[in-house]
Amino acid sequence: LQTKLPKVGTTIFTVMSQLAMEHDAVNLGQGFPDFNAPDRLVEALDRAMREGRNQYAPMTGVPALRQAIAAKTERCYGYRPDADLEVTVVSGASEAIFDAVAAVVRPGEEVIVLDPCYDSYEPAIDLAGGRAVHVPLDPATFAPDWQAIRAAVTPATRLLMINSPHNPSGAMFTEDDIAQLIALLRDTNLWLLSDEVYEHIVFDGRRHESVLRHPELRERAFVVSSFGKTYHCTGWKVGYCIAPPLLSAELRKVHQYNTFCTFAPAQWAFAEMIEAEPEHYEQLGAFYQAKRDRFREQLLTTKLTPLPVPGGYFQLVDYSGVSDLDDAAFCRWLTVEKGVAAIPLSPFYETPPSGQRLARLCFAKNEATLDRAIERLQKL
Amino acid sequence: LQTKLPKVGTTIFTVMSQLAMEHDAVNLGQGFPDFNAPDRLVEALDRAMREGRNQYAPMTGVPALRQAIAAKTERCYGYRPDADLEVTVVSGASEAIFDAVAAVVRPGEEVIVLDPCYDSYEPAIDLAGGRAVHVPLDPATFAPDWQAIRAAVTPATRLLMINSPHNPSGAMFTEDDIAQLIALLRDTNLWLLSDEVYEHIVFDGRRHESVLRHPELRERAFVVSSFGKTYHCTGWKVGYCIAPPLLSAELRKVHQYNTFCTFAPAQWAFAEMIEAEPEHYEQLGAFYQAKRDRFREQLLTTKLTPLPVPGGYFQLVDYSGVSDLDDAAFCRWLTVEKGVAAIPLSPFYETPPSGQRLARLCFAKNEATLDRAIERLQKL
Ligand SMILES: CSCCC(=O)C(=O)O
Ligand SMILES: CSCCC(=O)C(=O)O
Repeated sequence: LQTKLPKVGTTIFTVMSQLAMEHDAVNLGQGFPDFNAPDRLVEALDRAMREGRNQYAPMTGVPALRQAIAAKTERCYGYRPDADLEVTVVSGASEAIFDAVAAVVRPGEEVIVLDPCYDSYEPAIDLAGGRAVHVPLDPATFAPDWQAIRAAVTPATRLLMINSPHNPSGAMFTEDDIAQLIALLRDTNLWLLSDEVYEHIVFDGRRHESVLRHPELRERAFVVSSFGKTYHCTGWKVGYCIAPPLLSAELRKVHQYNTFCTFAPAQWAFAEMIEAEPEHYEQLGAFYQAKRDRFREQLLTTKLTPLPVPGGYFQLVDYSGVSDLDDAAFCRWLTVEKGVAAIPLSPFYETPPSGQRLARLCFAKNEATLDRAIERLQKL
Repeated sequence: LQTKLPKVGTTIFTVMSQLAMEHDAVNLGQGFPDFNAPDRLVEALDRAMREGRNQYAPMTGVPALRQAIAAKTERCYGYRPDADLEVTVVSGASEAIFDAVAAVVRPGEEVIVLDPCYDSYEPAIDLAGGRAVHVPLDPATFAPDWQAIRAAVTPATRLLMINSPHNPSGAMFTEDDIAQLIALLRDTNLWLLSDEVYEHIVFDGRRHESVLRHPELRERAFVVSSFGKTYHCTGWKVGYCIAPPLLSAELRKVHQYNTFCTFAPAQWAFAEMIEAEPEHYEQLGAFYQAKRDRFREQLLTTKLTPLPVPGGYFQLVDYSGVSDLDDAAFCRWLTVEKGVAAIPLSPFYETPPSGQRLARLCFAKNEATLDRAIERLQKL
């Protein structure tokens, strides 16, 4: 049996979570909150089950949820997608990315990804028979290098994948990035896949430059998001894709025969939650900013150097004041010997920048958890 | 935008459910119960949520659920798969099928499917770059024609897909089929994908010939099942695949980057339910047999002729005493004009047998629903 995915091993998130468990480390690795989903959401899901909403949802998603997503998109980004033709509910942002790539990438075609990038992008491209072309982000600021991206476009390029707020760095696209992206698309005929799962976790008054704000972008784009990060329920795996009718139709063909539909009671619960409590996602930035600020301040009492965090719930730290190990070795050591699990950046790269000494810490945690981690990090 | 799936339209199940809704027809089309999931299951899920089990489940599934599946498999089929290496929880049997095909089928390879077959098989094969080779089942009995299957094997054949109890016919593999299948695999080097989602819905004292009973089969097989049919919750989309470690490893590579993991609270609920109440699935055959028997008896008061139903929750009827329309036209007419939605068989075929006059009715319904349908069918 010859594997079709020779490069794929166990994802770094699973590896580090297991290691954290085995060594009783504070797990700041894999990105998930250690606090619970909102009561109202849990109660709405429970009610949906008891009302018998346990059979197949429509393949494209429960209509009330698609309407709620359309309305919320309009409130947030000034554009209302057509709930019937442009919004598709799927089993997590991962499935949306997988389906979108499978829908439009053909054998031999190229997809531009910006390194460091989430580790599911390339296997999705490989399974479609495509080839990932890796263009590095700026190693200091994680900003896109638009000249390099433009230079990477060939007649075989089908798709450009972007992600803002960015995992693992927290970097965010600026207005200027959007202008450059619009110019690039004007000159080429790429599709765009915009991974915006951290859309509501943005700090210091910044504006999330959703692709959906811009007609020249959204007419060519799969915009992917999910409720896991926004509603503290990463294990619920309800995501969605907003795309123009033609692209949505192709994505749905894949989704229909991949998972067909998504856990139905949660769809009813999110439909209710989004409409009943818009302040939840409106206040999410402030909620996480308080965590970020407190955690950064604490980090200043350690030998780790925190990098800026414009958005998302990850804090990159430079550990070169502590260790000269490469990042994979450092994160293992930190987990096993020092009791704090972190994620190295190298698995997010085709070619990690040599000498980069960065680790990713998740601050989507209770204060007590972060305090315990800091206590241990102070001993480095 | 040139579609990658030119043959794919909206699945017949969605088409007929929508038509049923628009025309207020009794929906015996798409296969789902109109009664609720067991209280204990709903309560266990609610408890899991309130206990905070809302973050990512392990990629392969919650260990307690994989253990429960392994133990149940041993109780049912005398074989205990390794919960760590051979059991993978995914987002519905559909995802399991999609992942298995994506994992082992390469561009240009052939996959044998037995017509009529479930409509997700071929798109999964197409997206992997493979080619579905359709071998018809016996048009009267829906038994496999082992000589024809053997004749269809070429050096390019990678996989054989089987399904017992069979959707749409309810036919079941016999001991002789298993002997023939073992002989076929001995002489070739195919992988096997066995779709067994109706495993617990078998009638008249028949034994479900799970591939898992037979070492010569299970060592080469992806065995796919799900909880949707067994626990009256088709919309929960929790399925699983049992396969030897090498095949499981390949399936997991796809699953890891497709949906990554499955709605976590339901996994805890199923783990509890399977162990606490094995009588639920043990008595499922009797539960549905009572429905089948009552429905068949009622059908004898109509001009439709019921075919034998060894397993599953679908009743095929021959409508040639009522209409000479082809099956697609008949099912539309039945839905729109007569108020009972049914599923035609032709979408399950590459080449439907000419002159076949069969429609599929789902009897996973409350007596009141079936009574209403029968009242309408009596007027044909
Ligand atoms: C699917 S596990 C990874 C979770 C995550 O998004 C991350 O930690 O980056
Ligand atoms: C995914 S909707 C189809 C449900 C089903 O299995 C059937 O009706 O055959």
